[in-house]
Amino acid sequence: MATMSRPQAPEIPIRRWANGTWVTADDTVAAEEPLQLSLDGTPLSVVMRTPGNDVELALGLLRAEKVIESLADVAFIRVSAESPVSEDRVRIESDLIESNQVDIHLGRTAVRRPERSFLSSSACGVCGATTVESLTLDFPLLKPGPRLPADLLPLLADRLRQGQAVFAATGGLHAAGLFAADGELLEAREDVGRHNAVDKVVGSQLLDGRLPASDRLLAVSGRAGYEVVQKAIAAGIPVLVAVGAPSSLAVQTARAFGLTLVGFLKRDRFNVYSGSERLSSD
Amino acid sequence: MATMSRPQAPEIPIRRWANGTWVTADDTVAAEEPLQLSLDGTPLSVVMRTPGNDVELALGLLRAEKVIESLADVAFIRVSAESPVSEDRVRIESDLIESNQVDIHLGRTAVRRPERSFLSSSACGVCGATTVESLTLDFPLLKPGPRLPADLLPLLADRLRQGQAVFAATGGLHAAGLFAADGELLEAREDVGRHNAVDKVVGSQLLDGRLPASDRLLAVSGRAGYEVVQKAIAAGIPVLVAVGAPSSLAVQTARAFGLTLVGFLKRDRFNVYSGSERLSSD
Repeated sequence: MATMSRPQAPEIPIRRWANGTWVTADDTVAAEEPLQLSLDGTPLSVVMRTPGNDVELALGLLRAEKVIESLADVAFIRVSAESPVSEDRVRIESDLIESNQVDIHLGRTAVRRPERSFLSSSACGVCGATTVESLTLDFPLLKPGPRLPADLLPLLADRLRQGQAVFAATGGLHAAGLFAADGELLEAREDVGRHNAVDKVVGSQLLDGRLPASDRLLAVSGRAGYEVVQKAIAAGIPVLVAVGAPSSLAVQTARAFGLTLVGFLKRDRFNVYSGSERLSSD
Repeated sequence: MATMSRPQAPEIPIRRWANGTWVTADDTVAAEEPLQLSLDGTPLSVVMRTPGNDVELALGLLRAEKVIESLADVAFIRVSAESPVSEDRVRIESDLIESNQVDIHLGRTAVRRPERSFLSSSACGVCGATTVESLTLDFPLLKPGPRLPADLLPLLADRLRQGQAVFAATGGLHAAGLFAADGELLEAREDVGRHNAVDKVVGSQLLDGRLPASDRLLAVSGRAGYEVVQKAIAAGIPVLVAVGAPSSLAVQTARAFGLTLVGFLKRDRFNVYSGSERLSSD
């Protein structure tokens, strides 16, 4: 089995609001980092994942895409030196200098090479970049935008839920909602894909000629991973509120771009992972 | 705004188990279908999404990838005739014969063409195919596999949760668990990505030379979309149990391949969307 190379749940300082009171606390977030997957030395895909068991991830992915059937189709695997792997059933070379990389070299028995297999199921947003720093070249920092009363945020979850017609029937859809700075719900979209719901909301604003949406709030029904944060930043939206948990890379990216990132939104409390200066308590 | 072309929540017949009793019922599931996104007539990406607002989805996605900044970068949009769109701010031609397609034609002001932008964030599994039927060429039907007592399934959710060390700390990770036919948890993996957790479990079995895993059960902590179903089928696992909701395409695919698909797993009840013959009530 592959072993874990980095903590899967780093601890970070946050601000927490509960019933009108702010406290500073440490919060544990799920680790998320991009993994560059290569095949025979050629970059194939970038996968946003929690570090650890990366060889398993790469092999499982290639099995699902019918590139390999079993280990007999794999000649050897190259991983970065900081991702030590102990595995005696396949040769593993720890000689990649850059981290977050797995390179699978196929044997002659491999069924076929992937052709259009790795079309994206949602936009990656990583664009081949493997560091947060390289992304700062592509998007401008967010503008200061609105300053919001903290007690406005707990209202948003209910308002978003009211806009979720299909979720009520199926329990199976994610939602994204765009709000005005006074908390009015302007647009809501539902989709089986979290990222799609956000793309639809942003697309509706693009159709209306309203991007960058620098005086708006974006709320999502689920978790805030890197890609949701990236889509908010790309649309110029300065505040992202998630009902679920953020990932480590989401927090890191939000801080780099000046995005206010709120997670675990409930009726009486929420956590602020970045940009709490936009939230006032009075 | 784009209008919806098909029902977002189709109703399907299912079997429901509650406290030892089976009933037949109709259940409403969230619609999921692949969307082929093209740029200037060239296929760019296949996105699994809930039909409706497809033009918004395409535009939002291209904005996030910095392909377009505004509608001024779009010359015109082609959609399939069965996806009627009323939009007076951009020319829309409804002349694509095949459904589930949006083709964005860029104007001369478009910032740049995507290069490596659309690397996948998780395996698509669709491989360029846009129908479930064309997938039947790629994977064998599942073997009959084990026959299971229905009251075994409600135990699996707790056992999977016990294997989720990092979720307990962060509330931010998905889990996948592989179980023996007697309900013993064999492997559990956690990840920010649902699909990644499944890939890691399948990868661990591939490393152990245990694929196809035709006498195993796979349980996931979240929803069962098309891609999770596809990964179970690719690994030869005959039973997939989800704590959350399935999508329409997940159900359709499970039925086509003979996969037992269980959703909304709780301590005292669950829904069976496909393959209930593997579950006995005694």
